[in-house]
Amino acid sequence: MPLSPEHRAEIEAARATPRQTLRAVSEGMEAHLYRAHEVLDHGFVRVIDYMGDDAAIVQAARVSYGAGTKHVSNDEGLIRYLMRHWHSTPFEMCEVKLHVKLPVFVARQWIRHRTANVNEYSARYSILDREFYIPEPAQLAAQSKVNNQGRGAVLEGAEAARVLAMLKSDAAQMYDHYEEMLSQEDQQGLARELARMNLPMNIYTQWYWKTDLHNLFHFLRLRADAHAQYEIRVYAEAIARVVADWVPLAHAAFEDYRMGGTALSAKGVAVLKRRLAGEAVGYEQSGMSKGEWREFEAVWGA
Amino acid sequence: MPLSPEHRAEIEAARATPRQTLRAVSEGMEAHLYRAHEVLDHGFVRVIDYMGDDAAIVQAARVSYGAGTKHVSNDEGLIRYLMRHWHSTPFEMCEVKLHVKLPVFVARQWIRHRTANVNEYSARYSILDREFYIPEPAQLAAQSKVNNQGRGAVLEGAEAARVLAMLKSDAAQMYDHYEEMLSQEDQQGLARELARMNLPMNIYTQWYWKTDLHNLFHFLRLRADAHAQYEIRVYAEAIARVVADWVPLAHAAFEDYRMGGTALSAKGVAVLKRRLAGEAVGYEQSGMSKGEWREFEAVWGA
Amino acid sequence: MPLSPEHRAEIEAARATPRQTLRAVSEGMEAHLYRAHEVLDHGFVRVIDYMGDDAAIVQAARVSYGAGTKHVSNDEGLIRYLMRHWHSTPFEMCEVKLHVKLPVFVARQWIRHRTANVNEYSARYSILDREFYIPEPAQLAAQSKVNNQGRGAVLEGAEAARVLAMLKSDAAQMYDHYEEMLSQEDQQGLARELARMNLPMNIYTQWYWKTDLHNLFHFLRLRADAHAQYEIRVYAEAIARVVADWVPLAHAAFEDYRMGGTALSAKGVAVLKRRLAGEAVGYEQSGMSKGEWREFEAVWGA
Amino acid sequence: MPLSPEHRAEIEAARATPRQTLRAVSEGMEAHLYRAHEVLDHGFVRVIDYMGDDAAIVQAARVSYGAGTKHVSNDEGLIRYLMRHWHSTPFEMCEVKLHVKLPVFVARQWIRHRTANVNEYSARYSILDREFYIPEPAQLAAQSKVNNQGRGAVLEGAEAARVLAMLKSDAAQMYDHYEEMLSQEDQQGLARELARMNLPMNIYTQWYWKTDLHNLFHFLRLRADAHAQYEIRVYAEAIARVVADWVPLAHAAFEDYRMGGTALSAKGVAVLKRRLAGEAVGYEQSGMSKGEWREFEAVWGA
Repeated sequence: MPLSPEHRAEIEAARATPRQTLRAVSEGMEAHLYRAHEVLDHGFVRVIDYMGDDAAIVQAARVSYGAGTKHVSNDEGLIRYLMRHWHSTPFEMCEVKLHVKLPVFVARQWIRHRTANVNEYSARYSILDREFYIPEPAQLAAQSKVNNQGRGAVLEGAEAARVLAMLKSDAAQMYDHYEEMLSQEDQQGLARELARMNLPMNIYTQWYWKTDLHNLFHFLRLRADAHAQYEIRVYAEAIARVVADWVPLAHAAFEDYRMGGTALSAKGVAVLKRRLAGEAVGYEQSGMSKGEWREFEAVWGA
Repeated sequence: MPLSPEHRAEIEAARATPRQTLRAVSEGMEAHLYRAHEVLDHGFVRVIDYMGDDAAIVQAARVSYGAGTKHVSNDEGLIRYLMRHWHSTPFEMCEVKLHVKLPVFVARQWIRHRTANVNEYSARYSILDREFYIPEPAQLAAQSKVNNQGRGAVLEGAEAARVLAMLKSDAAQMYDHYEEMLSQEDQQGLARELARMNLPMNIYTQWYWKTDLHNLFHFLRLRADAHAQYEIRVYAEAIARVVADWVPLAHAAFEDYRMGGTALSAKGVAVLKRRLAGEAVGYEQSGMSKGEWREFEAVWGA
Repeated sequence: MPLSPEHRAEIEAARATPRQTLRAVSEGMEAHLYRAHEVLDHGFVRVIDYMGDDAAIVQAARVSYGAGTKHVSNDEGLIRYLMRHWHSTPFEMCEVKLHVKLPVFVARQWIRHRTANVNEYSARYSILDREFYIPEPAQLAAQSKVNNQGRGAVLEGAEAARVLAMLKSDAAQMYDHYEEMLSQEDQQGLARELARMNLPMNIYTQWYWKTDLHNLFHFLRLRADAHAQYEIRVYAEAIARVVADWVPLAHAAFEDYRMGGTALSAKGVAVLKRRLAGEAVGYEQSGMSKGEWREFEAVWGA
Repeated sequence: MPLSPEHRAEIEAARATPRQTLRAVSEGMEAHLYRAHEVLDHGFVRVIDYMGDDAAIVQAARVSYGAGTKHVSNDEGLIRYLMRHWHSTPFEMCEVKLHVKLPVFVARQWIRHRTANVNEYSARYSILDREFYIPEPAQLAAQSKVNNQGRGAVLEGAEAARVLAMLKSDAAQMYDHYEEMLSQEDQQGLARELARMNLPMNIYTQWYWKTDLHNLFHFLRLRADAHAQYEIRVYAEAIARVVADWVPLAHAAFEDYRMGGTALSAKGVAVLKRRLAGEAVGYEQSGMSKGEWREFEAVWGA
């Protein structure tokens, strides 16, 4: 339960005083503002601010295409057209600012998405809290035998217990030592910028993260994907639910064209065309490598 | 007079229906929303949307620095500290979206600022309007004798008259030909994406341009500078006035540290220190090149 | 014929003096260095410098994946895997710097690709040459009846002749006036930064353009596409031929997965699966809009 | 001693086989290629590739300014002019690719510089080595009393001994546990992407990092600065020494205008002018805040 009563009171206070604006307003997003969506054991995602809505995407596209776009009968059709044809700039006209609390090892994956603005809590300047990510038993998975960067079966029995105990006691001990290095009676106290290096990467950090909708969709495509690590995927999924309320038309197009769709290589197109013409085409006839075939087969059958 | 009565009515309608929001609101910016600030003979700058205010900059900085920043007594002091120390990320937490109408040759300078989102009117898709930038007589300047990219004295008499007449008649003729190429009785009509190439670069285009406050300040520093070309500088100045109402504390810090300040090289520091110690230090003793000395002298005297 | 004998001699001189380096060398790219690939009537693309080769992509990927990647049997397989899974960072480890001469209206499309470094010839500082793009008769196309941003049939007879004559005489006249405004006996001469605004957008400019291979592939995907405007597509095609010699494995993967492949929406996948199962599925059963169906049908049949 | 004999042999082999190229070559940089510059106890910086040299900066600038730049007598003068006037694009025409081994907490500061390409060793995919940063006794500093993000006096005696012992034993224990979680007899073995979260942030990682010279100078200005954390500053200093050999003219201009220079606010300019005119101006007369005055005084005296 990551939120203290004080924190909840603070959020409710922020939500209690609406103000007037002439800007585009997304009612779906207003309902999310400031509220913490809990993720993992101590993390959260909160919407701090946003700019634009579905209509803002359409408006920007019509600036580009001028009167010519008027024949597209409605906003939904235009948004789907833009998504289908990779016209990314109208989606860049929406922006969102999130407050995220997340384990450091998740933050290190996340920051690889460079087209975003970030203000992270500074452990040079301030002292980190005693909060560590400890996986649920259901997430304590073995190394995958087939995928070098994936998980296999869930650990059980003594092995699971031993791993959990280690994670817990190590985190506690490292934080104790962090505190002892920082200050103790009759000591000078190690500089915070040094003491932090003793902390493990499941400690929580937090940041403000701001990005535009196009880059957010790119983030979601990679991180809400089934191959993403579970611990970042749950953040992506929480954000995706928010986006569905913020820009429902754009989100539906994203689901259809990106998350639910698939890409075919020239070889893949050729195989499907031959199959549609009635030919039995398998791995040997495909011209694909084993890896490619495995992925093709997963969607289209052997 | 760039705005038609219809356009004015459209703006007033957009301003007539405030809505409620829980987001940060800048009253100074609300007063600007949608209104067109006229620039040059047919251009304008309009604020379409914004995110954040002075408090949002402070809020982001306090996420980074944690409890440690509480000793900075007030928001103004913190914002000035951030500006002075080139801590740019809190300023990136504010965002603005502008609708700008501008001549093509100005747009070509402007677009060199790459950290921004742009949706420009497409002349492949739609037909450009018959609107060209024709300078005021006071802006019809000769080539500078001393600066390869600057202006000298204002043209006068017959030369001024002849140049103005040329600009006007050429623009009219080119637009006539543009129209004739696009369509005429018994003709197929040249593709718009081809016909546009006959238009001169003082024709007006328009775009939505979205950027964050840090990058906007960088744009203003270069383009509101006395050395910038007049025709882009007037846009920068119009934007700067809007920014002053949007984030007054950040804008004041920007004025003090960037626009009103100056940078000194190691050599410049050395010269000033010697002068402060009572020594007469001129060009010969400075170790600077002629160009450097000219710029140093302009601020600090010979 | 864009290159003067002097220019050719300069290029040959630059090519005459190889030096020693310890860096990665692409023999295919060395053959292109400095040579001008002629594009349109006065344009060109020249490789000025490059960093990396196919092996550099593999090397960067192996840094990321460590010993684990050793089981991928060869470089080609790894490069294809990276391309298939949108692992873009290894491709970013290659960089190319081009010198391009191009009409201004093409440059305005090109610059929309923001993740690149650009140094353009300055018409504030210097005087532009008298060189304009005049289309070949085969490129003088009518506006498309079905596509708002495309071309239809080639113009013929009197219309073609009249359009060509206009383009030629207008360019000549505008350049004459440009020169007359810049300087004439007994005149001060208009500032270059002002006089340039009278020039039409088919005048040639030039720039150094530097980007990484990932972003270059993105540029090629959009600009070497059949829907891109012909006048930028020929530049993209010239660059694509250079890339094929520079990084042949990466280029082949790009051709297979991006240029020759296709994307399917969730709806498109569903239609194909039903067809593969023997069902006749047409527009009415597809759940697609007319536009989507038209594009789907173009690849997969009605 | 970070480099094994095998690693040294590999580097010497890579350096043993020069090849011919027509590209710009920097002799100063060739001498650095592949060699590891040792940093901290197990880290290093190695140049893997580079593009351009001082002449390439000049060449790009001359494309922009055309014939007009010929009056600048020499390359050094032009490079200093570009640096002085913040003309950043010619510096972007040079690129460098580094292989860096560094502690995770340093990597987390470094990655905040977003305009760069990065391929980091993946701890999802592969197993990290048992290498941790343990500070030299001289770097084991107390928290600064005056600067929230800085260091004070060096720890001594029992406190220093205790801190060092903790850092060492914690690192050893955490790595032991990491190995035990990954695999042990009769165990399935925890997924690598999970086990890594138990490792402290002084463990070493490595990456390929590629950026252009303009952004590299920006990185050096912030990270080679006296206020940067020591552990990242030593990397910046190692890189700065390499840059001095790569592009000596650009590096000298950077030293003079950025590292050795200073910025003055409008208030600072006013104070200095009054002092130069003979007036005694102190804090009370300056109009500055206490913090600003402290920084001003450090350069210019009370």
